[in-house]
Amino acid sequence: MNAVKEEEEIVYEVAVVVPKRNLKEENGEYDCVEVLVNEFRNVGLVVDRVLGLSDEFIKLGAPLETLGRAAAKLGMKKPTHIGIELQFECEETEAFLRQPDGSLFSWCERFQCYRHLIYETVNKKDSDISLKFDSKEIQWEAGESLLQRLESEGIVKQVFPLHDETKRKKLLKSWALNCWDLTKQPIDEIYAYFGTKIALYFAFIGMYTRWMIFPASFGLVVQLVDFGSLQLLVLPAFFVGIVLWAVLFFQFWKRKNAALAARWQLNFSVSTGQGYKVLGREWSCIQSPMEVIKNLGNDKAKEKEAFQRYEWFGYLKRFRNDALVILSIICLQLPFELAYAHLYEVIKSDIVKFGLTAVYLFAIQYFTQIGGKISIRLIKHENNEYTEYRADSLVYKVFGLYFMQSYIGVFYHALLHRNFKTLRQVLIQRLIISEVFQNLLENSIPYLKYNYKKYRAVRNKKKREKGSTGKIQFTSRVEKEYLKPTYSASICEELEDGLFDDFLELALQFGMIMMFACAFPLAFAFCALNNIAEIKTDALKLLAMLKRPVPRAAATIGAWLNIFQFLILMSICTNSALLVWLYDQEGKWKIEPGLAAILIMEHVLLLIKFGFSRFVPDEPAWVRANRMKNATQAQYMCSKQLLRSISGGERSLNPRKTPDELKKTE
Amino acid sequence: MNAVKEEEEIVYEVAVVVPKRNLKEENGEYDCVEVLVNEFRNVGLVVDRVLGLSDEFIKLGAPLETLGRAAAKLGMKKPTHIGIELQFECEETEAFLRQPDGSLFSWCERFQCYRHLIYETVNKKDSDISLKFDSKEIQWEAGESLLQRLESEGIVKQVFPLHDETKRKKLLKSWALNCWDLTKQPIDEIYAYFGTKIALYFAFIGMYTRWMIFPASFGLVVQLVDFGSLQLLVLPAFFVGIVLWAVLFFQFWKRKNAALAARWQLNFSVSTGQGYKVLGREWSCIQSPMEVIKNLGNDKAKEKEAFQRYEWFGYLKRFRNDALVILSIICLQLPFELAYAHLYEVIKSDIVKFGLTAVYLFAIQYFTQIGGKISIRLIKHENNEYTEYRADSLVYKVFGLYFMQSYIGVFYHALLHRNFKTLRQVLIQRLIISEVFQNLLENSIPYLKYNYKKYRAVRNKKKREKGSTGKIQFTSRVEKEYLKPTYSASICEELEDGLFDDFLELALQFGMIMMFACAFPLAFAFCALNNIAEIKTDALKLLAMLKRPVPRAAATIGAWLNIFQFLILMSICTNSALLVWLYDQEGKWKIEPGLAAILIMEHVLLLIKFGFSRFVPDEPAWVRANRMKNATQAQYMCSKQLLRSISGGERSLNPRKTPDELKKTE
Repeated sequence: MNAVKEEEEIVYEVAVVVPKRNLKEENGEYDCVEVLVNEFRNVGLVVDRVLGLSDEFIKLGAPLETLGRAAAKLGMKKPTHIGIELQFECEETEAFLRQPDGSLFSWCERFQCYRHLIYETVNKKDSDISLKFDSKEIQWEAGESLLQRLESEGIVKQVFPLHDETKRKKLLKSWALNCWDLTKQPIDEIYAYFGTKIALYFAFIGMYTRWMIFPASFGLVVQLVDFGSLQLLVLPAFFVGIVLWAVLFFQFWKRKNAALAARWQLNFSVSTGQGYKVLGREWSCIQSPMEVIKNLGNDKAKEKEAFQRYEWFGYLKRFRNDALVILSIICLQLPFELAYAHLYEVIKSDIVKFGLTAVYLFAIQYFTQIGGKISIRLIKHENNEYTEYRADSLVYKVFGLYFMQSYIGVFYHALLHRNFKTLRQVLIQRLIISEVFQNLLENSIPYLKYNYKKYRAVRNKKKREKGSTGKIQFTSRVEKEYLKPTYSASICEELEDGLFDDFLELALQFGMIMMFACAFPLAFAFCALNNIAEIKTDALKLLAMLKRPVPRAAATIGAWLNIFQFLILMSICTNSALLVWLYDQEGKWKIEPGLAAILIMEHVLLLIKFGFSRFVPDEPAWVRANRMKNATQAQYMCSKQLLRSISGGERSLNPRKTPDELKKTE
Repeated sequence: MNAVKEEEEIVYEVAVVVPKRNLKEENGEYDCVEVLVNEFRNVGLVVDRVLGLSDEFIKLGAPLETLGRAAAKLGMKKPTHIGIELQFECEETEAFLRQPDGSLFSWCERFQCYRHLIYETVNKKDSDISLKFDSKEIQWEAGESLLQRLESEGIVKQVFPLHDETKRKKLLKSWALNCWDLTKQPIDEIYAYFGTKIALYFAFIGMYTRWMIFPASFGLVVQLVDFGSLQLLVLPAFFVGIVLWAVLFFQFWKRKNAALAARWQLNFSVSTGQGYKVLGREWSCIQSPMEVIKNLGNDKAKEKEAFQRYEWFGYLKRFRNDALVILSIICLQLPFELAYAHLYEVIKSDIVKFGLTAVYLFAIQYFTQIGGKISIRLIKHENNEYTEYRADSLVYKVFGLYFMQSYIGVFYHALLHRNFKTLRQVLIQRLIISEVFQNLLENSIPYLKYNYKKYRAVRNKKKREKGSTGKIQFTSRVEKEYLKPTYSASICEELEDGLFDDFLELALQFGMIMMFACAFPLAFAFCALNNIAEIKTDALKLLAMLKRPVPRAAATIGAWLNIFQFLILMSICTNSALLVWLYDQEGKWKIEPGLAAILIMEHVLLLIKFGFSRFVPDEPAWVRANRMKNATQAQYMCSKQLLRSISGGERSLNPRKTPDELKKTE
């Protein structure tokens, strides 16, 4: 029961920002902000108002009962002690599993409840209410959500999740500023504080860095030790070694992911407002055909047909979009990148080179922006009603762009020079530039942005209160947080957050070191160091530089896993090509035993890559057994009871009825 | 309700064979057969006794109530109207879904009940009972199953499922002897009569043959039409075409399989005596670690550790076995096969060649026997407690043997001659021999066996009754069925039935035509014809030549699907090699544009092979939606009810308790 007590010390978790009003005018009853605050209090939220320099902050906290009521109203499904998920009911809280930290709701669920609560502040009267904001008049229509109205009027500037200061400080100490545990992280606390998706990112990068030790040391040995006559065999051995390493790593990551999902009780479906998600993307296109079906009535054959039409139409559209993206990458981006790489080679003057690079960097910024926008427009025409799936689709499309951008130049160099030294130089340049600069930028830009905003806020304040002298200080933490930048993606803020950039960086790095492993074995060691820094800077960024991110529920790392797998495949092919080039320095290109051996090795590795997952399943046996046991328990619990109710109401329960009809018969 | 009436016309579905006894001796009370028959009657079975020439046949039928009682006792889980599976209860039959033909139990379930019922005839008294068989005395110990006892004494000769004459005749007419529908088959009736696994085989071969029309006609065109200057491009186009065809076919087969499973209500787990099986092999190694765990008590960490140890030990063992099999195939079988192929090439004399082939054929018969036995012994040391999984493991191992045996000779010819004409000859020889002869053998051997047995039975009868003259006729159908051979595999009768041979034939054929597609495009047309014949002869064999096979529950075609997928992969590689050889007739082996193009084509095809399943999921949307709807319904039905019971008994229901403990608390 101490978990309940803990929750009762109200933590303000969401803030609503409104401009400061003219406080002199004191007919508060019709002031829209006062009404909003009253509405918040009515739905059971605890409100704390803070006046900042130029804005007012309404901090909101929710006691457990309020959250529970919202969860029940949302029809939120939560795992119970018998393993199956059931709709949440306020009276039966004992039946539901608690989070690892003892609370009933996870941060994702809490945030969902908050959002439900604050947007549920509708006008329950029959008539419109006219509200005032300073001198402006606002019509609050019957049945309209006040917050939505105020947002569209621009009065509510932002709604954002607040940092929880005690937990944040604890995490800072145990995680971001903990210099001893380089890759070990308090994943459960990260999960409790940031939600699933961010916790999975850190679990992934931690495991990735830990596993990196093997190829890093192997690479160091290959690079530094002279093997004499065996030198010709060392590189193929290294190649086979790192491919096996990558295959093993991703299989074990899947198992770890399954174990984490079991620990965080994500093993079954998690229901959000829009649909269902299971591990992977099982229920992606379920919800909307349902709508189609309802109009068709009870005809089963017609229903099936409609589903099939809908399904295939969806595939066609997706296929068309993918074809469009791939074609435009090949026809537009590829020539551009090749032209740059070629010009860079041809031009002798350093100044022109510098100018060219500047133009190029400017152009690709612009290109990726356009690419992102086109991708989003395309995705909107797909049948993916479900947000996480859309986000994945976006990730694939945008990664295509970045893939071309990052690697085509390197390929060009590899092909043109057939000289490992130049290739190595290019790789070092790219790796250091991309990694080090990106890490610096990633952390300095939010800090600069924050400082600039702070400076501007103070200046504005000074301007307004010209007479007052003395230093103006930020007294409230919530205002400081408001000025911090949000954790957002560089390409598209609708579907993805900052994780997109972090994963993109990781994937591009992985591709770079894997695809050209034979050319530059030292890269792994460099990356291992870089990733350790990356963990710490990302942690610091999330905890200190940015607003608390909006939590996202996702049971896996989604599209990124497939991208990593694809990069392994690519690396098998490119390394084979590199080895052929390396051993065929005279340019004879004959199918000698050497080339045949490399081809056979390539095929064997491809076979291993695809066959390995059959040997070691994606889910550890104990997770599976646990799920199984739970299912059996559920059966023991409710078998008889259920049977009676089914066969009692059998007539009204033939499977053609929709859940809505079912509800009516109850 | 007419479904129930239909069931009440008793159909005898199982027969027990005992020898004819000396009928003079009339103290029937202690005659073991009489006691057995009485026991059968006691458990509710309907008994019909038929006297044959030298044996007595006890035909057993079960009314619906008896089956229901057995099912409830077995704890059989059946799908209900709300989609989830629940334990069968006799009183609540209305809650359970019926089979497509209106009956409550499928043939698999019925057979399971029968087996339970006849082996449940235990001695319920405290003391042993002494029974007589002719003059022999048998001690029936307390608590022992009588049937088992009699089987071990050799008195019960066989227990076998009986053909249902009306349904059999209907199927013969609508399926085996229906000459108009070449590939369309009454799959639902086949399912009802033979069970899932055989129905899936016929569904597969039917779809396979229908899809074969495309490559068959493409192959005909390639073979017969002269494309002039485009001739060089035709073969690569054909290659790409058939690989795409194969990839599409298997993806659509998976979808069809899912649809069939949904229609036959196999979409959730099917419980047998030993464990759980879901689509695929999810619960394969669950049951036995449970036993390990029980002794450990409630320690969760220890439990997890034990599971992990058990799991990894299992993988290690399996890995060891697989390595053993692969090594022995490569080190023992490969040289042998190569030696034969080489000798056959070298020897000039036709007589010696003939002798060599005879010796070879004899040797490989012996080899596969040994291989099968070794595989079974290896599998017994694996952790697969669950029969279907073991069967799959056997299939993989034995297929390895056959793969080497069937293809290595062809590869040798392809490599040695680099001449498509000789290769084509070898292929035609192999295809015709393997297909036509196998089809003939497959059908004639059971017929000959049956006739020989009949002849022997009559001769024995004549010997015994020397005086009696006149023709001896078989009057009872059950005796004829008893003399028919069983549907058994050639390698191992424990784990597989005749389906092994049928699938093996299909897989070897598929490998032959796919892997050497570029060398002999006509093969597809030949195979299409052969498969049409195969469907009919297999149907005839099952309906007329053999005993009714023991039904096996399986939701997919299991290991064979993976083998087919592997063969597609192999075919991509071998056809690329064939094309390289074909276009490089001067033996220069230079990496020219042609070779590079073929290599690129190969990689693109491999990518498509692995990427395609991401575009089109294995399960049609309507099946998924149906499952989803069912789950939602179940939730609506029982959410509140369940919650109350969970949180009421929450203390006693923490997830660490085992189902057994749960039972006690109820």
